[in-house]
Amino acid sequence: MKRDPIKKVRKTDISVGFFGGGQLARMLALAAHPLSLNPKVLASSLKDPACSVTSQNFIGDTNSKADIQNFLKNLNLATFESEFINVSLIDEASKNLDCYIFPSPSLMKQLQNRLSQKKTLDRFRIETSPWHEISESKDLDLAWTKLGGKFVLKSSFGGYDGNGTFLALKQSDLGKLSEKVSNDSQKFLAEKFISFKRELACIYVRGRNGDFTHFPLVETKQSNNRCDWVMGPMKHPDFKKVSTKIQKMMKDLDYVGVLGVEFFDTGKKLLVNELAPRVHNSGHYTQNAFDHSQFEMHLLAGLGEKLPKPQALSKAFVMTNLIGESNKAFEFPEGLTGKLHWYNKLENRSGRKMGHVNYIGKSAKTLLTKALNERKKISK
Amino acid sequence: MKRDPIKKVRKTDISVGFFGGGQLARMLALAAHPLSLNPKVLASSLKDPACSVTSQNFIGDTNSKADIQNFLKNLNLATFESEFINVSLIDEASKNLDCYIFPSPSLMKQLQNRLSQKKTLDRFRIETSPWHEISESKDLDLAWTKLGGKFVLKSSFGGYDGNGTFLALKQSDLGKLSEKVSNDSQKFLAEKFISFKRELACIYVRGRNGDFTHFPLVETKQSNNRCDWVMGPMKHPDFKKVSTKIQKMMKDLDYVGVLGVEFFDTGKKLLVNELAPRVHNSGHYTQNAFDHSQFEMHLLAGLGEKLPKPQALSKAFVMTNLIGESNKAFEFPEGLTGKLHWYNKLENRSGRKMGHVNYIGKSAKTLLTKALNERKKISK
Repeated sequence: MKRDPIKKVRKTDISVGFFGGGQLARMLALAAHPLSLNPKVLASSLKDPACSVTSQNFIGDTNSKADIQNFLKNLNLATFESEFINVSLIDEASKNLDCYIFPSPSLMKQLQNRLSQKKTLDRFRIETSPWHEISESKDLDLAWTKLGGKFVLKSSFGGYDGNGTFLALKQSDLGKLSEKVSNDSQKFLAEKFISFKRELACIYVRGRNGDFTHFPLVETKQSNNRCDWVMGPMKHPDFKKVSTKIQKMMKDLDYVGVLGVEFFDTGKKLLVNELAPRVHNSGHYTQNAFDHSQFEMHLLAGLGEKLPKPQALSKAFVMTNLIGESNKAFEFPEGLTGKLHWYNKLENRSGRKMGHVNYIGKSAKTLLTKALNERKKISK
Repeated sequence: MKRDPIKKVRKTDISVGFFGGGQLARMLALAAHPLSLNPKVLASSLKDPACSVTSQNFIGDTNSKADIQNFLKNLNLATFESEFINVSLIDEASKNLDCYIFPSPSLMKQLQNRLSQKKTLDRFRIETSPWHEISESKDLDLAWTKLGGKFVLKSSFGGYDGNGTFLALKQSDLGKLSEKVSNDSQKFLAEKFISFKRELACIYVRGRNGDFTHFPLVETKQSNNRCDWVMGPMKHPDFKKVSTKIQKMMKDLDYVGVLGVEFFDTGKKLLVNELAPRVHNSGHYTQNAFDHSQFEMHLLAGLGEKLPKPQALSKAFVMTNLIGESNKAFEFPEGLTGKLHWYNKLENRSGRKMGHVNYIGKSAKTLLTKALNERKKISK
């Protein structure tokens, strides 16, 4: 039986909460205000990026049941900015409270784990790179044989931005990996090493009422395990086919909210690399290139309102990430033409996502050249 | 000698403050966050619309020098959401503090007063409705003769949304108006009653660095002395000529920020009705119809950065105001297609501006029909 607490609450009285105070929660909160939703943040510190954009901050621990309950009591809707969170605790804490959490904690649990995510994709016959489950070190040799050599070893939980990811490029690497596997209680996943032509991504959205839509396919460039830039719209002959399968998966799972999907384009095939059950860096361009951003769509999905089909405001778009390269504060030169989205992180650090810049125009390639040239002039 | 405190402060460390916590401050604050500015609000209550969109609220009185000083001490930039404020006190309070206030308090003083505003427009040969200064009641008879009959009597200070405005439609009305003039210490302005074909408006922007730009001409519909809707872009043969004069005026006055200008189209002439030295209701459409909103442009103007020329994202646009009609909370039906901008006012009241809705598309007239139909379905 589904809970449906929203219907009891007048739209302009709805409070929506975010577990975590990072940049994704910040941009969700900024999107919530005009929609008449009251955004609230559960963050570890008032200095977190999301806390500066709302007056309703709850300082607490997402690993404390009491803190979660105290937060949920004040909410009608709640959602995640990261899948790497104790969703079982959130599920437990939410019992008997009238707050609708989306995507559902059980679904988050299924998708936050790389092994069960892979199994889910297999179940819906969504093509991914061949893989093998690693429970103990001897599975590594089996994987080497089954996957035909080179593979990527990934921990089943908590890996993002390259964390928890290790390469087996030659058979002699297996010994080192064997230690990792033996010393860790969690299972691992061995994934065939894919040489791809380019990485692609897409933002899918499904509403509580079953409405489904998606943004266009985009190309994403990763650098040092972080998203460097995004451009679009892009095409791939298999995109329509895989989108239909993803739509079916989201329907069967009763997935609610934005789902970020990363693809490998191998030159022949379009393989799903990873599912991110939340708003996603590859969708930040929607803030300026579409009439509804991914952040707005995520909230509308949770509200259960009729989902609009986002309309493009330009022929092409580019997003560049602003990633710290030092401990010094950013310095911006005059005359940058892109639209800045700053995260208000108090300290710069090498590798830290500090903001992003969106561009719209007629040609993605021209925009990308301009965007990368402009980014070079920013002291990071 | 001009102060230029901005140059000492790194862009991402800049705090910008707003005198007042209404919807204009709210939308300025929402625009400030992505730009890397830290928005702060001086409001009378934490329940004010702007206070929910930032964590940095100063509860105080804009008529208290101590409160203003305490606020300004924490700021690099400060600006207004209303011209009806004690700017002399702000000017006094800001002495020896390193905060750049825009538009300058002296200019705000000049433009907040209807008489000195009229004189300013005359000085720059910007055509307005004929007028006569009213210091004492006998001036009313002189005005009746000079203006050729019917006129509008306006108090020189504090009038907006029809407050402080009285009609002299027949000579016998003068007696009643004479009482008002005698009982009030301030001067009044008699303005010839203009029968106009339509009302138009435009948002002009001038930066601290002298850059100048403007948004398109729009039609505005007033109802019960409040802005009811806006549509555009519109044309008028005299628009270019008057814009050149307004540009000269803003330059000579060293005006910094957004200036909202209201026009009467008499069918023959384009007359300036009023100047609003701030972001303006007639410019709310820019949030969705342009790549830079009036709120962003106002902040960029104060920062002194190179001003972008805003680019249209659609051929046409419409904005409808959501004005309260009761004390009951708003109820929104499903499936509204416009973009809501809600002000988060805790109580609905008849005549109160509670939010607005923006539409973009190909034809202003088609959009207006749709927008007004959708608005009818909202229980206000």
